[in-house]
Amino acid sequence: MTQTEYRYQQLENWLLQGITEQRWRLGERLPSIRALCEQQGLSKATVQHALQRLEAQGLIEARPKAGYFVALLPHAAKTPRSLARIEAPRPVTVSELFLDIMRRSAAFDLLPDLHAGDSPPGIVALNRAIGRALRRQKGDDHQYYDAPAGDMALREQLSLHAARRGWQVLPEQLCITSGCQHALFLALMACCRKGDVVAVESPGFYGVLQLLEQLELQVVEVPTSSETGLDIDALDAVLKRWDIKACVVSPAFATPGGALMPLSARQRLLALAEQFDLAIIEDDIYADTAFSQVPDPLKALDTSDRVILCSSFSKSLSRDLRLGWVAGGRWHDRILHLKLVTQLASSRYLQQGLADFMRDGSLAAHLRRQRGELRTRRDRLIASLHAWPGEIRVSTPQGGLAVWLELPESVDTLSAYPVALSQGLVITPGPLFSVSGQFRNCLRISFAHPWDTRRSEALGRLPELLLPGL
Amino acid sequence: MTQTEYRYQQLENWLLQGITEQRWRLGERLPSIRALCEQQGLSKATVQHALQRLEAQGLIEARPKAGYFVALLPHAAKTPRSLARIEAPRPVTVSELFLDIMRRSAAFDLLPDLHAGDSPPGIVALNRAIGRALRRQKGDDHQYYDAPAGDMALREQLSLHAARRGWQVLPEQLCITSGCQHALFLALMACCRKGDVVAVESPGFYGVLQLLEQLELQVVEVPTSSETGLDIDALDAVLKRWDIKACVVSPAFATPGGALMPLSARQRLLALAEQFDLAIIEDDIYADTAFSQVPDPLKALDTSDRVILCSSFSKSLSRDLRLGWVAGGRWHDRILHLKLVTQLASSRYLQQGLADFMRDGSLAAHLRRQRGELRTRRDRLIASLHAWPGEIRVSTPQGGLAVWLELPESVDTLSAYPVALSQGLVITPGPLFSVSGQFRNCLRISFAHPWDTRRSEALGRLPELLLPGL
Repeated sequence: MTQTEYRYQQLENWLLQGITEQRWRLGERLPSIRALCEQQGLSKATVQHALQRLEAQGLIEARPKAGYFVALLPHAAKTPRSLARIEAPRPVTVSELFLDIMRRSAAFDLLPDLHAGDSPPGIVALNRAIGRALRRQKGDDHQYYDAPAGDMALREQLSLHAARRGWQVLPEQLCITSGCQHALFLALMACCRKGDVVAVESPGFYGVLQLLEQLELQVVEVPTSSETGLDIDALDAVLKRWDIKACVVSPAFATPGGALMPLSARQRLLALAEQFDLAIIEDDIYADTAFSQVPDPLKALDTSDRVILCSSFSKSLSRDLRLGWVAGGRWHDRILHLKLVTQLASSRYLQQGLADFMRDGSLAAHLRRQRGELRTRRDRLIASLHAWPGEIRVSTPQGGLAVWLELPESVDTLSAYPVALSQGLVITPGPLFSVSGQFRNCLRISFAHPWDTRRSEALGRLPELLLPGL
Repeated sequence: MTQTEYRYQQLENWLLQGITEQRWRLGERLPSIRALCEQQGLSKATVQHALQRLEAQGLIEARPKAGYFVALLPHAAKTPRSLARIEAPRPVTVSELFLDIMRRSAAFDLLPDLHAGDSPPGIVALNRAIGRALRRQKGDDHQYYDAPAGDMALREQLSLHAARRGWQVLPEQLCITSGCQHALFLALMACCRKGDVVAVESPGFYGVLQLLEQLELQVVEVPTSSETGLDIDALDAVLKRWDIKACVVSPAFATPGGALMPLSARQRLLALAEQFDLAIIEDDIYADTAFSQVPDPLKALDTSDRVILCSSFSKSLSRDLRLGWVAGGRWHDRILHLKLVTQLASSRYLQQGLADFMRDGSLAAHLRRQRGELRTRRDRLIASLHAWPGEIRVSTPQGGLAVWLELPESVDTLSAYPVALSQGLVITPGPLFSVSGQFRNCLRISFAHPWDTRRSEALGRLPELLLPGL
């Protein structure tokens, strides 16, 4: 929790989390005001203020002489269903929606023109570290391109960062990129050729779908649950039916649903990769947003160098840093060569600044601070979604920056996009996460930003916009 | 000239330039000591010191009672010959040499471990501008990706920069990239598909040859002179014989020879492009290094949007900035989409820093300052090459960072590479600039760095290394 939060907000968030995680189930009584005062060391007025706020949101209800009771249905029973049908490989034809959303800098915000809030201490420290690296430039350093693999000091810090979550990777096994999307591009270029078939999660990351389209690769969508991720049985069926070259998977908090793939599924995935001689491209970008422990990467289980791990700090630190990395396994040399011919090198001083920021512990402090905030934001989002009319389902990710929302079948989020836009809101419709027109009644909603008044108000306008009849 | 140069150095450089440009031809008498004193406002001692230094280099000789005479053959008669044979289109198979040179950060330096000299004022100003942009970041700016086309303020500055040399381009027609190599990659991806044939200059830029190889494009090499560039008659013959999709050309100071393509050749090139429905990819990266006037780009003559201009400030300002741009003509939208899917966006604060640096006139000041220095460095290099034994030919570029050296037929620069390496020197052998094994007796030598004692000494070791029998 941030230091600037009032005590009633802290209690409110704690209660919200308990409801979200079903510590108190629907219809159950919350602890009494007296018990909350004692447990939390708070005044009666503070406790009452927090409870009244939750009551105003419709999450709890006061019953005279009995106390406060959980009033909204818990969401867990309403996890979005895995909708993806298996269809034959086909060329990707994703709409111009992606370009439009990115032109508006709106990938993770309903209100991209807002740019509100304060720069967190981590960003201030990062910018200072880059500034110091700039001032340290000496002589004719600017006359030299960096080595294609990137700055060794940064690769050493990334190797240490990986070791802390139980993944042993040498600096020499890493190549620095211009962000995770660039890493995914290099990985796909390295292990696939035009026309090859790639298996992806469905719903899954639109950036990958667009990349496959531009690289003229074929795609087959594998049903993916917002709880446990890629459906391994479905993948097995797909592999038996078609000649698949690679599988792009995001085992930790995959967008849009935020699923965490269980160990058994990971082991089966690697066994299938071995059996069908598959390249596995692991998108690890959300791992560092974990609300509790950062999960091991799939790559840590990889004994045959066939997992290519791609990542960056765009989701956990800054989207504007534009530095990522790739551990290419058996494709490392090819990736290095591709990085070189497609952009020669990365900025040395940016890398040095990031390395310093990691070395002095600022990254670790930033991630610790952020974890609690993200969980609180997720809880508030889920709680407010419960107040929406009609039958809705919502994922409960343990990391990441968004939830996946399943609305009634009649809803068409794609037609709602221009309507929302006319009101200054940018939504992320479900069909963006698929190539086959599925998920029209679904929506990804981000909690990357704080729920300040204007953003909460914007969120509050969505039900009327999306569910006009209800 | 830099302010730190002594007056005798200024005079020495001025005389050197006169000899290089054949103001005084071989065997001709230089102005008398008295005339030089009066013309230049210098003391007799200063003039004598400068003349003695040139005499020590063997460039001039003193004849008793007669004065000083030009003693070394002028180079202009020995311009490298256009060697490239026309061969059928073929897959590119360029060696690992490129990767090795780039790993050593040695693209433009004989002694890449040196990193000597001072940061020029332009780099100090650039780093300060980026530092200011970093400190200006506010709120949650770091939470948003920049728009794929890049920062509008930077595109506006680039548009103004273009207008100063007579090229009208709107900010909306530009897309910011991660350097010129990235721009070339996007351009080739946009207008070619696997297997297409691309015409290139020969000798020509190795970065393009490597890119063609990785993109599985076919290449046909067009003979190119180090004075007037691409041989248009040869291109015409090539176009009649094979189905060519695109032509990559560098009309201003093409590496390695530094040719400047005359207006008539440019006009014929565009007419051929029209006739054969060709995409022209213009590598404009060296234009800003022009020793006198920056030439118009080919793109300024383009009336049918079929020229894609690619550039950056890597050769004229900093190789570590990693920002470039592309004016994609009819392929603009496709390039934008490719930029988006292959790396989403560029760093906003880097772009803002560069835009500020351009807006306050620092770039213009830097380029002005640098021009004289580059010409002086070129002159010193050419003068010292004249002292080499045997029949050598060398280009005399009016811009760029390197000369192209043609050594006797028996010389093998490729075998000399590892020998040079064992002595701490990195040379750039001729075969790197071709896919057909030509130019084994050629070498590119850079004058990007000042000729300080150690670098001059390194250059002095090359004749023994390359021409051991002579």
